[in-house]
Amino acid sequence: MHKKIVVIGAVAAGPKAACHLKRLQPEWDITVVDQDNLISYGGCGIPYYVCGDVSDEAELRSTSFHMVRDVPFFEKAKGLEVLIRTKALSIDRKNKVIQAENLDTGKQLELPYDKLMLATGARPFVLPIDGAGLDGVFTIANLHKAIEIKQRISKGLVSRAVVIGGGAIGVEMAEALTDLWGVETALIEFMPQLLPRIVDWQFAAMLKTHLQEKNVAVYINEGASAILGDGNGKVTGVQTPERILEADLVIMAAGVRPRSELAQKAGLSVASWGGIVVNQRLQTSDPDIYAAGDCIAVTNLITGKETYAPLGSLANREGRIVGDNMAGLASRFKGVVGSFIMKAFDRCIGATGISYEVALSEGFDADYALIAPSDRAHFFPGEAIAVYQLVFDRSSRRVLGMQGFGVMNDSVSARIDAAAVMITNNAVIEDFRDAEMAYAPPFSAAIDSINAAAFVADNLCANRLRKVDMDRFLAWMKDFSLEPDWVALDIRHPLESGPFVEKFGPKRWVAVPYAEIRGRQAEVPEDKTIIIICDAGTRSYEVQIFLDHIGQKNTMVLSGGFNVVRRIGVDWYPK
Amino acid sequence: MHKKIVVIGAVAAGPKAACHLKRLQPEWDITVVDQDNLISYGGCGIPYYVCGDVSDEAELRSTSFHMVRDVPFFEKAKGLEVLIRTKALSIDRKNKVIQAENLDTGKQLELPYDKLMLATGARPFVLPIDGAGLDGVFTIANLHKAIEIKQRISKGLVSRAVVIGGGAIGVEMAEALTDLWGVETALIEFMPQLLPRIVDWQFAAMLKTHLQEKNVAVYINEGASAILGDGNGKVTGVQTPERILEADLVIMAAGVRPRSELAQKAGLSVASWGGIVVNQRLQTSDPDIYAAGDCIAVTNLITGKETYAPLGSLANREGRIVGDNMAGLASRFKGVVGSFIMKAFDRCIGATGISYEVALSEGFDADYALIAPSDRAHFFPGEAIAVYQLVFDRSSRRVLGMQGFGVMNDSVSARIDAAAVMITNNAVIEDFRDAEMAYAPPFSAAIDSINAAAFVADNLCANRLRKVDMDRFLAWMKDFSLEPDWVALDIRHPLESGPFVEKFGPKRWVAVPYAEIRGRQAEVPEDKTIIIICDAGTRSYEVQIFLDHIGQKNTMVLSGGFNVVRRIGVDWYPK
Repeated sequence: MHKKIVVIGAVAAGPKAACHLKRLQPEWDITVVDQDNLISYGGCGIPYYVCGDVSDEAELRSTSFHMVRDVPFFEKAKGLEVLIRTKALSIDRKNKVIQAENLDTGKQLELPYDKLMLATGARPFVLPIDGAGLDGVFTIANLHKAIEIKQRISKGLVSRAVVIGGGAIGVEMAEALTDLWGVETALIEFMPQLLPRIVDWQFAAMLKTHLQEKNVAVYINEGASAILGDGNGKVTGVQTPERILEADLVIMAAGVRPRSELAQKAGLSVASWGGIVVNQRLQTSDPDIYAAGDCIAVTNLITGKETYAPLGSLANREGRIVGDNMAGLASRFKGVVGSFIMKAFDRCIGATGISYEVALSEGFDADYALIAPSDRAHFFPGEAIAVYQLVFDRSSRRVLGMQGFGVMNDSVSARIDAAAVMITNNAVIEDFRDAEMAYAPPFSAAIDSINAAAFVADNLCANRLRKVDMDRFLAWMKDFSLEPDWVALDIRHPLESGPFVEKFGPKRWVAVPYAEIRGRQAEVPEDKTIIIICDAGTRSYEVQIFLDHIGQKNTMVLSGGFNVVRRIGVDWYPK
Repeated sequence: MHKKIVVIGAVAAGPKAACHLKRLQPEWDITVVDQDNLISYGGCGIPYYVCGDVSDEAELRSTSFHMVRDVPFFEKAKGLEVLIRTKALSIDRKNKVIQAENLDTGKQLELPYDKLMLATGARPFVLPIDGAGLDGVFTIANLHKAIEIKQRISKGLVSRAVVIGGGAIGVEMAEALTDLWGVETALIEFMPQLLPRIVDWQFAAMLKTHLQEKNVAVYINEGASAILGDGNGKVTGVQTPERILEADLVIMAAGVRPRSELAQKAGLSVASWGGIVVNQRLQTSDPDIYAAGDCIAVTNLITGKETYAPLGSLANREGRIVGDNMAGLASRFKGVVGSFIMKAFDRCIGATGISYEVALSEGFDADYALIAPSDRAHFFPGEAIAVYQLVFDRSSRRVLGMQGFGVMNDSVSARIDAAAVMITNNAVIEDFRDAEMAYAPPFSAAIDSINAAAFVADNLCANRLRKVDMDRFLAWMKDFSLEPDWVALDIRHPLESGPFVEKFGPKRWVAVPYAEIRGRQAEVPEDKTIIIICDAGTRSYEVQIFLDHIGQKNTMVLSGGFNVVRRIGVDWYPK
């Protein structure tokens, strides 16, 4: 019964599987190999190390009880054999042997195995552009790079930086550089928005505006066409189709790709984009070889399709499942809903499931409920507006995703987590409506945002609520001729609506306060399409219902209202 | 199709149902009656009003857009008729008429209805003891009481207070009095713990210790036998079996009871304890009469039994469901899992589902996983230890409940909410293990507390982990003769374990650091029962596995470890 286990990769999934398996099968010999000398670190902590929140890189390699997870730790505390600076070169599946090499001595090793785990992780995508190899150009590949970046900054060698890539790591790095070091930082993203395919454009726009408020220069729709250097091979800037951005540090954060060459060479099934194919037991096409972490393809539980989800939290859960299955316990990894959360300066942005844009492209009868409620009881000190969007399928009423944007605390995270576990369970709108969120004024409004979003979705499905899309509204505000027939009905307090009437004229902007609409309905033009506007959208819905009732049905509500508009940021807002 | 609706009660469920129904059926006449003149307020905000966080009581009666919800508001903005200071005296179900009385004029009214809603709420339980009627003795019955309490405090008339009742409102009021006003406050609870039947004793004990740190005098197992007064009818103190507590203000927070006399008189089905019986459509035994909010009996979704859940958040959701059903939309209220969250000074305590104690009393094969993890990545600045307990049924692996205690932020709330929606879905341990909690270092550890708790539960079910109950351990620490055979194996750092060895002696307290156990196993006495101790319990589990492996199986892990012990507070902890 004694078995020999080899684990290739010692960052997250690998050590997790090895340690768990050793507890389940203490007799087994488990060897973990990694080509690096720094192992078992929290890669997600790198931006916080660079910015200085985490002072020593060793903290990223430590346990919660402050022991560094180095080779002696794994050997003494965990009973594993760990070979660092050891590169696995190939897998002889027939004879069940790994060929490896010690990178310091050049010595070749053969590692026999009964069961093998591939936890080879991911590598940053290096853009195929000129100058990518210049001194001062970094990817966030590993701790060594992070240490070098931080050294350069702390030595005062960096005054201007460009971050290429507006995904999570790019945004976090832009914050790290700007916030604590005062480095003049530009963030460029070649797609039309930040966090593409993770959140919808409104959420990306709110994030962008906040980054700009924090002095990050953000350029979207703008890729890096080349990285520029001086005669001595040092980086000097980034060339885009629009401009040259000067820089003495360039961070390339253009995503990561699975490291699956070893699997591919061994003839294992690998997706065209590089993800190692596994079943729910996390076995590869060779049942004695398991794979987990950033190198595998997983199933998106909403679309049922293959996807890529390189996240430390998933790697840890997958690692445990590999350990279970190697030991003979039948645990399954069913897939991901894509839960995501990120701090960006004083804001937090999160998502789970799929975005509206993705839902449309996947062929769902997609719609969304956009709300802008208080994150706690509106009378509780420190309450703040959060913005949430529930994405759902109108035909089946299935909830497909949820996104949130709010001030930096755990409030958005709470709603995203609750949404994620419901979506995993194939939730419909009713499940969100009935979710029993814990309530007290310091934690939420009496009607939790999860419930409120479901109420709006319910109203949309029943066609009680008809909304205008935010992008269409914003386009109209830039150019009224796009919709010559539209008139805004501003139902906010006269102190709020007054400046708008003054700026845009009473023909374009009609102001009737919410509580006075019953009785002043005659002021609403009958022959126009009415865009009803308030701060959050809730009152506008009530007014729409009332106008419907008196026969004026050509109205649309601006969902999320000016709470969203202000966070997106517009240049037409009256002072 | 035109209908006449009467709603009795205008605090939470009533107005919610009325407003929602009016939107669904704008033609219908809806009348809301309430005996009070202050209506539609957030009763849960009263402690925050008393303490001064909320400066004006009108804020508790305002919308999120700062309009006071008074009679003109409901009439003009919502299209409802609202009769305040109007008491419903009886229901003539045969003729479908309410008899009511204007409390100011004495005028009698008849209100015919097609459908009726009872939202009569709850009243505070007044203890049947001497002195309950003295001047200075208050219940938190309504806004008037809150206003009077705050006036007395702000006039400097209150220097010492006693709060009777250690439920949520009692604790919140104790905080309100102590924190901002510096009133010397005692909190007494006649049950053996605070928050009885809501959380288990360890959680109550951590809360109690924190209240004491904040200068609230807490007496548990100690009821009020009388309230004492001077010769002029003014309160002077509270008598308990143990002592006299002087006070110029006494808050009676001994729970609330449903106001169901009207329902009872009308012959509707009412539970023995007073809750109005409703079906999932929230119809009473008369299908034309609905009821919702603090006056109804609901179903506990874990036990399937009748329960009482007077909470503003539920009242709002129930109100909407009454509106739906009255309008002809088939919405259901299935029941509650009992989600609960509370701020107490700098801490937060939450729960959902049922406690271990309740689970045992309900006949479940109950067990619990107690953990004490970081609330975010352990290297992230500001991280703090939280304590969670997952309660589950060993036979079915069904999760029955979860409790959390941590610093005051939304982190516990996030886990309680995610747990609640899973428990609503009849989750088993695997669902908690697989829950995809959004991860980034500022928000959680890479292994979220939800997942970590499930791992421990899984280990317990598999008998890989054997634990000692905290109460048994604490009793032993007070009197080693209770378990003469026990020896502590302290695997923490020698700087931590050293003082314990010194204090308790090397025969009772063996110290072998976690990472050195492989090799120093001979120091662990073979003929004793070994209690393995660390800070959180995680390392202790690993050591237990290792000792099992080498044949030493008489060990038990102190789940939650000294992180929990320190929060409970003990007098034997070495300085």
